[in-house]
Amino acid sequence: MNFTQDELIEFLRPVAVVGCYGGTIRGVSALNAAQEGDIAFFGNKKYAALVENSRASIVLVPENFGGSPSATRAYFKMTNPSWAFAKVCAAIEREQIRPILAGIHPTAIVDATAKIASDAHIGPLAIVEDGVCMETGVRIGAHCFVGHGCHVGRNTCLHPRVTLYANCWLGENVVIHSGAVIGCDGFGYETMEGIHHKLPHIGCVIIENDVEVGANTTIDRARFAETRIGSGTKIDNLVQIGHNVRVGSDCLIVSQAGIAGSSTLGHHVVLAGQSGIAGHVNIGDGAQIAAQCGVPGNVPAESVVRGTPAMPVNEANRFYVLRKGIPGLFKRVEALEKKSQSDQ
Amino acid sequence: MNFTQDELIEFLRPVAVVGCYGGTIRGVSALNAAQEGDIAFFGNKKYAALVENSRASIVLVPENFGGSPSATRAYFKMTNPSWAFAKVCAAIEREQIRPILAGIHPTAIVDATAKIASDAHIGPLAIVEDGVCMETGVRIGAHCFVGHGCHVGRNTCLHPRVTLYANCWLGENVVIHSGAVIGCDGFGYETMEGIHHKLPHIGCVIIENDVEVGANTTIDRARFAETRIGSGTKIDNLVQIGHNVRVGSDCLIVSQAGIAGSSTLGHHVVLAGQSGIAGHVNIGDGAQIAAQCGVPGNVPAESVVRGTPAMPVNEANRFYVLRKGIPGLFKRVEALEKKSQSDQ
Amino acid sequence: MNFTQDELIEFLRPVAVVGCYGGTIRGVSALNAAQEGDIAFFGNKKYAALVENSRASIVLVPENFGGSPSATRAYFKMTNPSWAFAKVCAAIEREQIRPILAGIHPTAIVDATAKIASDAHIGPLAIVEDGVCMETGVRIGAHCFVGHGCHVGRNTCLHPRVTLYANCWLGENVVIHSGAVIGCDGFGYETMEGIHHKLPHIGCVIIENDVEVGANTTIDRARFAETRIGSGTKIDNLVQIGHNVRVGSDCLIVSQAGIAGSSTLGHHVVLAGQSGIAGHVNIGDGAQIAAQCGVPGNVPAESVVRGTPAMPVNEANRFYVLRKGIPGLFKRVEALEKKSQSDQ
Repeated sequence: MNFTQDELIEFLRPVAVVGCYGGTIRGVSALNAAQEGDIAFFGNKKYAALVENSRASIVLVPENFGGSPSATRAYFKMTNPSWAFAKVCAAIEREQIRPILAGIHPTAIVDATAKIASDAHIGPLAIVEDGVCMETGVRIGAHCFVGHGCHVGRNTCLHPRVTLYANCWLGENVVIHSGAVIGCDGFGYETMEGIHHKLPHIGCVIIENDVEVGANTTIDRARFAETRIGSGTKIDNLVQIGHNVRVGSDCLIVSQAGIAGSSTLGHHVVLAGQSGIAGHVNIGDGAQIAAQCGVPGNVPAESVVRGTPAMPVNEANRFYVLRKGIPGLFKRVEALEKKSQSDQ
Repeated sequence: MNFTQDELIEFLRPVAVVGCYGGTIRGVSALNAAQEGDIAFFGNKKYAALVENSRASIVLVPENFGGSPSATRAYFKMTNPSWAFAKVCAAIEREQIRPILAGIHPTAIVDATAKIASDAHIGPLAIVEDGVCMETGVRIGAHCFVGHGCHVGRNTCLHPRVTLYANCWLGENVVIHSGAVIGCDGFGYETMEGIHHKLPHIGCVIIENDVEVGANTTIDRARFAETRIGSGTKIDNLVQIGHNVRVGSDCLIVSQAGIAGSSTLGHHVVLAGQSGIAGHVNIGDGAQIAAQCGVPGNVPAESVVRGTPAMPVNEANRFYVLRKGIPGLFKRVEALEKKSQSDQ
Repeated sequence: MNFTQDELIEFLRPVAVVGCYGGTIRGVSALNAAQEGDIAFFGNKKYAALVENSRASIVLVPENFGGSPSATRAYFKMTNPSWAFAKVCAAIEREQIRPILAGIHPTAIVDATAKIASDAHIGPLAIVEDGVCMETGVRIGAHCFVGHGCHVGRNTCLHPRVTLYANCWLGENVVIHSGAVIGCDGFGYETMEGIHHKLPHIGCVIIENDVEVGANTTIDRARFAETRIGSGTKIDNLVQIGHNVRVGSDCLIVSQAGIAGSSTLGHHVVLAGQSGIAGHVNIGDGAQIAAQCGVPGNVPAESVVRGTPAMPVNEANRFYVLRKGIPGLFKRVEALEKKSQSDQ
């Protein structure tokens, strides 16, 4: 990486530039770790004090940022400093990434009936069963297992060591990280006289376009119809998604969250980390579920809930503040009782 | 799939049949998604209103279901509609499943000292170490790793990409899903002068007959004796079971639950999703632990607990209802205090 | 295993010996499961009553233990009975473990540019990409994937089926358990007009010496700098560590805990099971976070917190005790109100 200030101005098109850095930008860094020659950005307000004292030669700041840099440093005023910084990182990433060669690695085991686009890449020791279809631009990492009848859409990428059980359907530009398991049986049993009899799971998993699935996440196949993840939804690591769940588009599901069977999420829903959704409930569009929140029932669209069991966030926040006063409240009631007693 | 009503009557033996469907049943479906030619079932009371308006040609309903179907549709009254539906799904599953061929795939790596039943199946790129014993009907999926000295009982199935560390003992009809890790070291250290010294883990894991273990679940080996999962117990995805834990028979352990080291579960215990059991505690037979519940101590048999730390469920439910009144309670006490003040 | 009492005295060097066992010690066992010929230890006070009635021929007890053994049994008084017992287990472990042979298994796929120490072991079907460096004594298990540019330090051990994404740096004596995924992309998106745009993750993961990482745990790479796990830290199974997190040395992170992006842990921090740390917060040295605790903000050094959201442990404990009295409190306030009403 090697950018002059002028090259960066052309690349990032800042709203305004304050100050001037005459050297070469050679690296990206955090504000507090930056050295001369680094570019950094100011995103989280927590770190405002770091901008002035940072040694970063160029800092990407919000449009309304007031400060001015010391000599030989520059501030680029950006509509979205974080995204501008991401563009610089993406340029570095493009340099780092080695080209993925089209073709099937000689140690991969691909069934003769699988239809693989000629420019698809299938890594070493991957296994592709019968009846699989892979479209153009697909990249299947090493050690992946793609069960029979799976469909993998255009430009979709499986990182190493992903399992797709049979008959999963993945759209375009999907990214699945290492260790994820898609399409395993749901946790469904019929209990008769104390014995849990397994329910067959003959449904499938459908993952729409532009979904990302984190490492070691598990998504169960449906009992008979489908488990569906809507387009643009991003799922973090170690998330559990039960059988028959339907997730809308553009949701964010943060690490270690879980959704029990047959529940439905609308679009643009956020599940924060370690939150849990009970089975057969409905989460409306745009709802936000706080971290560790336990949701036993339906949540209306656009609402924000917190706590276990979930409360509207304002109610939860008030409760958490008052919680500290509860020991005092007991004492106050006791005092009132004593006084009432002595008044008689 | 292709069933006439009469064929289904013979297959499912309903208690009674209301109405008549003269066509062919070609698929299974949910009530609200069904088309003509589908069979559906009515299980969860939430969905009662869907039965009448469903386009399913045959609906499996409970014996005491009162409604009657529109012309050309039929209701089958069943003792257990869900289980009857499962039988239809199982019939479809039998059609879908390709036969698993006996034998060792040429790319599997099987140590010469392993004793493998002649009809066992070992998938591509699986690894079986020395001293392993596999009984009749065993199916080992692709990419599995079976460490030295493991025993895999009759008809047990490992889905692709399961790890068994050395000396695990699996009974009959066990099913282990992809990504599960059985027999890893427990989290045991002796801390001396601030340094955590690893305790050797020379014990094993024993999984009894008819157990199912979900995807990416982890079960630690014992420090020296055994970690044991009782027969008929079903474990969901992403569950953690610590070293020396003993789980009784016919338990249900739902996704993302965790059991810390040396704890004991009786028989027929239910751990709901994301619940956690502390170390060295005892959960009695038939106890039920609610979702996200945190259990710091023993739980008596047949009891139901909820909350963190766990409370008897009635106490927890009362607390959660009253929780909403706490802001009001503060105001009421304040009013009493003011009044008491002004009375003086 | 075959020890006389005298051999064990020489091996363990007890502070004192009470009683005498004349036979041979052939096994290790728990107090309540022991048979004649077993050695056991008394660690957890819960189990004090078991010592006297144990059939173990030798029991390792604390120095201040008062009891005396029945005839033909012996108590060894130890400064640390648990650790002494671990030494016996380690002796058994050394007998059990088959030597790991140096060299690259013929089915492993190792890029020609990788620098592998001559005594390193690379297991069957493992994949090592270009530019990897492995130092002396490294053991890479079967089915592991080591991405390009990774560094694996002296005597580090990857159990079977571990994924290292590109450019991870592991120090010496690190142990990574099966299914762990190190270096996957962090969960970072820039949301613009409702669409989540992926942020490039060009940083790395650095794991210092003597760290242990549990099965199916995930550690995300940094957005641009580094995610770092300090030396001597031990991480249990199914833990999530987000991008840019910095964990100090000698921490304990128990199963299913999660740390969101950019947070920092000091040294000797303990995160108990299923606890969660929000993003961009700072946990001071020696802090202890209770099980299932949710930490939304900074935690001072040496403090102990509990509950969701986290409270100082004393405050939390008081709240949990008073919680039971809240239904009564409502009734008491009601009684006061009625009385106040009737007094008027």
